[in-house]
Amino acid sequence: MSLSVKILGCGSALPTTYRNATAQVVDHNNQVYLIDCAESTQLMMRKYGVRMAAINHIFISHLHGDHFYGLFGLLSSLSLMGRKGQIYIHCPEKLQYMLESEYSPLDLSLTGYDINFVPLSYNDGLTLTMDSKNLEVYSFPLHHRVSTWGFVFREKERQRNIIKECIPKYNLSIAEIVKIKDGCDLRLEDGTIIPNNELTLDPPRPKSYAFVTDTIKLQSVVEAVAGVDVLYHEATYDNSYEERAAQTFHCTAGQAAEVARDAKVGKLIIGHFSGRYLSVSLLEKQAREIFENTIAAEDGMDIEI
Amino acid sequence: MSLSVKILGCGSALPTTYRNATAQVVDHNNQVYLIDCAESTQLMMRKYGVRMAAINHIFISHLHGDHFYGLFGLLSSLSLMGRKGQIYIHCPEKLQYMLESEYSPLDLSLTGYDINFVPLSYNDGLTLTMDSKNLEVYSFPLHHRVSTWGFVFREKERQRNIIKECIPKYNLSIAEIVKIKDGCDLRLEDGTIIPNNELTLDPPRPKSYAFVTDTIKLQSVVEAVAGVDVLYHEATYDNSYEERAAQTFHCTAGQAAEVARDAKVGKLIIGHFSGRYLSVSLLEKQAREIFENTIAAEDGMDIEI
Repeated sequence: MSLSVKILGCGSALPTTYRNATAQVVDHNNQVYLIDCAESTQLMMRKYGVRMAAINHIFISHLHGDHFYGLFGLLSSLSLMGRKGQIYIHCPEKLQYMLESEYSPLDLSLTGYDINFVPLSYNDGLTLTMDSKNLEVYSFPLHHRVSTWGFVFREKERQRNIIKECIPKYNLSIAEIVKIKDGCDLRLEDGTIIPNNELTLDPPRPKSYAFVTDTIKLQSVVEAVAGVDVLYHEATYDNSYEERAAQTFHCTAGQAAEVARDAKVGKLIIGHFSGRYLSVSLLEKQAREIFENTIAAEDGMDIEI
Repeated sequence: MSLSVKILGCGSALPTTYRNATAQVVDHNNQVYLIDCAESTQLMMRKYGVRMAAINHIFISHLHGDHFYGLFGLLSSLSLMGRKGQIYIHCPEKLQYMLESEYSPLDLSLTGYDINFVPLSYNDGLTLTMDSKNLEVYSFPLHHRVSTWGFVFREKERQRNIIKECIPKYNLSIAEIVKIKDGCDLRLEDGTIIPNNELTLDPPRPKSYAFVTDTIKLQSVVEAVAGVDVLYHEATYDNSYEERAAQTFHCTAGQAAEVARDAKVGKLIIGHFSGRYLSVSLLEKQAREIFENTIAAEDGMDIEI
């Protein structure tokens, strides 16, 4: 099982030549999930070798242009590339009205695939928005100038790993193997009980990833992302702009680090940097003073979880 | 007076890492005019140093994504950059409905400037769509899968240039200078007539530029662009794809060159290349066999007219 994230853009608002606006892909066992889709996302996908046609689920945090203006082009290109089947877009419901309206920028009746819109829930706390065999994705509300959501990707608990040598040793049937992987003990024909922990090894711990942008600092985010392995949290400004951050409903590097510290995450990636920062080493330094295991995102960066 | 064109994208349909989709700017005496606005156009403007805030007029040829999906981001960025005043968008009328609809991707009520939509005319032949002190822009219909227009930029005839030495020699008043620049002769106090051609020099010949994409080859285009200094004409395919060009309502390199030859233009720039061509030297060669003064566009290219 592998879980990784590739940053396609970690800038805010105005795109620059050194940092694209927000988009990233989560790769879980070769399934590609797209989070946000700023203008030029499909170009970044080509630049960084993302398998565009493998995207089945797209998550849009909110309807500011620097988070979704690349969606029309991506959906159009997928159609031109002959994409078939189903695509799920987890998004504010207004996006569905926009794409289904008479004056939509994209004529959905011409795409060769079906789009299933999954409106994000306004409920407090975590809401399950995607549930696949091995992965769950939850959304949770943030606080920005428009309705905005964060996302948590959680691998599901896996079955126990059977110790291979046990299969011939006890001449296990398929039915017995299934039960043992579920945690059952083995009863031999002579009545002997072989406890499960002599037959199996613990499965790998499920991994988790959380994406949080754009928002003011929130205690509800601490609770939503508690204990995740990696947290991507916006840090639009350095600490000297705390007032401006509040006015624009964004966070400073220090605030992002406080969330990471309080949520006891494994690692913090800061991003969504204001275009005023050519280098973000100051923001990284400020975050590390509060939460040591912090790195600053950059376009094209891969994070293995 | 200067007239130049900068190519921001000369690819078709799917953007690639080596060629952006269609956008270009015409610079006339430091006034910047944008023609088409594919996704990533604002990024190309930053890359190639185009003064984004100086754009007053935008011309959109048709509503296929590879010609207008960058408009939402550009208009949004102009607003974030504090742009005020008026912006004119010459476009298919559906674009106005799209941007003014309840579910527009961009909330026009939040922009700090006013957008004036100028719907393009379905009339045959040239229709004046922009008329400024020194420049006129005409639209004319093309033939593609959706309603599509080409554009001709024409400098206006300028006044005659007065020979500087004549001003002290004849002690010319402002009123006399104005008349002489308009082509009048000068009558001295003793009744002598000084003919205008002894007082003035011919003004520079007005320059002109035409933009034609996406379309099948049309005789009406030959007439619309007759005699322009520079013609940008789509050449999506090399000559071996003539059938596919017809099916997709596009042109081959040879067809573009035939239009240039028949219209007796000064120079041909071919563009809107299919993504299948990493190099377009074959298309350039095929066009030159019919119209010698041809160059193939590339992103970032400047053409002085």
